[in-house]
Amino acid sequence: MNQQQAQPLESFIKVAPESHFPIQNLPYGVFRPPHDPAPRIGVAIGDHILDLAELERQGLLADFGAKHRVFDRDSLNAFLELSRTSWTQVRSRLTDLLRADSTELRDNNPLRQQVLLPMDQCEMLLPVAVPDYTDFYSSRDHATNVGTMLRGADNALQENWLHLPVAYHGRASSLVVSGTDIQRPNGQLGAGQFGPSRAMDFELEMGFFVGTESILGQPIPIERTAEHIFGMVLVNDWSARDIQKWEYVPLGPFLAKSFATSISPWVVTTDALEEFRRPLPAQDPEVLPYLRWDADHSYDIELGVYLTPESTNAAVEMTRSNFQHLYWSIHQQLAHHTVAGCNVRPGDLLASGTISGPEKESRGSMLELSWRGAEPLELPGGDQRIFLADGDRVTMTAWCEGDGYRVGFGEVTGKLLPARTTS
Amino acid sequence: MNQQQAQPLESFIKVAPESHFPIQNLPYGVFRPPHDPAPRIGVAIGDHILDLAELERQGLLADFGAKHRVFDRDSLNAFLELSRTSWTQVRSRLTDLLRADSTELRDNNPLRQQVLLPMDQCEMLLPVAVPDYTDFYSSRDHATNVGTMLRGADNALQENWLHLPVAYHGRASSLVVSGTDIQRPNGQLGAGQFGPSRAMDFELEMGFFVGTESILGQPIPIERTAEHIFGMVLVNDWSARDIQKWEYVPLGPFLAKSFATSISPWVVTTDALEEFRRPLPAQDPEVLPYLRWDADHSYDIELGVYLTPESTNAAVEMTRSNFQHLYWSIHQQLAHHTVAGCNVRPGDLLASGTISGPEKESRGSMLELSWRGAEPLELPGGDQRIFLADGDRVTMTAWCEGDGYRVGFGEVTGKLLPARTTS
Repeated sequence: MNQQQAQPLESFIKVAPESHFPIQNLPYGVFRPPHDPAPRIGVAIGDHILDLAELERQGLLADFGAKHRVFDRDSLNAFLELSRTSWTQVRSRLTDLLRADSTELRDNNPLRQQVLLPMDQCEMLLPVAVPDYTDFYSSRDHATNVGTMLRGADNALQENWLHLPVAYHGRASSLVVSGTDIQRPNGQLGAGQFGPSRAMDFELEMGFFVGTESILGQPIPIERTAEHIFGMVLVNDWSARDIQKWEYVPLGPFLAKSFATSISPWVVTTDALEEFRRPLPAQDPEVLPYLRWDADHSYDIELGVYLTPESTNAAVEMTRSNFQHLYWSIHQQLAHHTVAGCNVRPGDLLASGTISGPEKESRGSMLELSWRGAEPLELPGGDQRIFLADGDRVTMTAWCEGDGYRVGFGEVTGKLLPARTTS
Repeated sequence: MNQQQAQPLESFIKVAPESHFPIQNLPYGVFRPPHDPAPRIGVAIGDHILDLAELERQGLLADFGAKHRVFDRDSLNAFLELSRTSWTQVRSRLTDLLRADSTELRDNNPLRQQVLLPMDQCEMLLPVAVPDYTDFYSSRDHATNVGTMLRGADNALQENWLHLPVAYHGRASSLVVSGTDIQRPNGQLGAGQFGPSRAMDFELEMGFFVGTESILGQPIPIERTAEHIFGMVLVNDWSARDIQKWEYVPLGPFLAKSFATSISPWVVTTDALEEFRRPLPAQDPEVLPYLRWDADHSYDIELGVYLTPESTNAAVEMTRSNFQHLYWSIHQQLAHHTVAGCNVRPGDLLASGTISGPEKESRGSMLELSWRGAEPLELPGGDQRIFLADGDRVTMTAWCEGDGYRVGFGEVTGKLLPARTTS
């Protein structure tokens, strides 16, 4: 390897070392530029957004296999449905355009003005129109914590849990982008009891988007799953624990989750996550053949959750976790999802379930952090929390620590508003 | 009322008395005409389909509030999103065009040739692009039967069942139209056990489509729900009972249902069902205020399920049930679905859950009919069934019995194919 190749990849656009969006990342999002109501697709680079719709219009993206324009759109779906080859071609072209030693964009000031927009002047929108949303339950520590609270430590994990990635269908209509305020839901809290939930919680999750579709009746073999996975986002699966407890038997969570689910606006591609691959945790008992793949892996993604009470407006760290704590891989999730014949479509979101780690400080929900109220959380200034209070803002963030840079997910944030008054 | 008005409404198109599609019905569907690959929207009248795309193109539908053409489409969604007023205007106009004493279409032979197509030469497609699919569990007899098998007669109904319409989110991607063959799914049947389901079942259900959307965070009050409900279809919620039993704890059914759900192609409007309104069953304990509505009601819809083994090719009646057996109304279902803030979108499908009645002959699934194998079903010719066999065709039908005519749903049919071979 010569000296030039050993230099870390850099962009001519200045990117701070703690930025989530160096040239190594290039996540995709849908944004509305200043002074233009039309949403379009861009990638984040430092504090800027590169306008892919404009680059595509000017024929500067080269051929990547699209028959129509895919970036002058209000969702990533048309790009997702292409193929892994197309995604990698575009990424490669964007890397070439943005690298420090590339003159094409760097030295063309009028073009730079046109296609590089200050991120803080743009509005981020939901990146994907999600046809179906599935939520898994893939953290062993989370399942064990919840099971211990409900059934005691001896029966914490259900009999099926180590054999298959448990999941349920979620609600796609109420997926919202980071920054959307969340209204505390009203609902049934028990027999004849109705009112605002008194047990509002967050769940620290990540989710991946399906790119190319599969066909009804044709399972995706686990060794082909990576071809169908485009990238990942942060997910806050807001939960009303009291509504959930009353309604969930025997068919699972329904209104306790469907009032809102927040996701981060930037989709980090699995291409960008390549160098942060890590081994999966050991799986014992051995899983069935359709869930086995020699090349299966997890990713080293640091996770943090912060609570900002309205009264202090100061963020308090609630949790530090890591994506590696998950027992089931995203490949196992997708292989399982399709093994009985269910098809997936471009834009489907498959979320991980709450990502808790083994330590108390790495628990991914208030339910676990306060152990259902047995251990209230002390906040600076003397405040306490068992569950979320009106006015609380919850912010989640995630990043991979590279050598001198971070490949990050930005954040997903939302503020809890008081419940709607009922007559 | 003068004598002419007292005459039953009739069309100039001959409709047999046992037809499901007299002028009183006029259900909507998406079809592909002979010699034309472009799907479009029509209504069924006797053995014909009236091509609404062509009528709209020729300006013959009068104004019903649409800003763009809504019938030259491959789904009903653009029509659904308008409003109840628009739906009723179109229905009224179509009734006028088709009635026996109306000359406009009747006496215009070239137009008749253009817009009235023989149904048996057209291909029916999925009528709606379903954004989210929800499945309820609204039959008390079904919930009691299943609960009795699992927990004994004393604990058959779960504690919450009489207080709220229990439901779960279903899978929208695998909704298929009547006539689609269904592949027996492979899946986990227990710890370390993988193979084709050995407990394939049907579930006799009906579902309604949401028309106009609601807004996230804003519940639909029960007395406004009817404005949002467009019409109904038959639903066969194919189920793999062994996969379900192993996977469903604690988050509900997942792969056991998501491999396929069949619906009938013709959407019968609630306008057409008006005269078949019947009282809801008494609800005791009294439900919470958000589920109460003086005008709430059920419908008198006869239901039948037929099994056709491949060997005999003769249909055997398995079940006779009625929509009135449902404990929870469609209005209560929609009010409940949105009470915590979840929004609904045009085309959302809300299904009833298995519609079982109190008698053995009215049970809506094989699980109940064979009482989990304790009472195998005898078929003519000496065949027996506990669950479905490869090659079995399941056909469901539904109709309202009017005075000299039927307002019917046609049928939903599907044949069970052998499982895919796994390596």
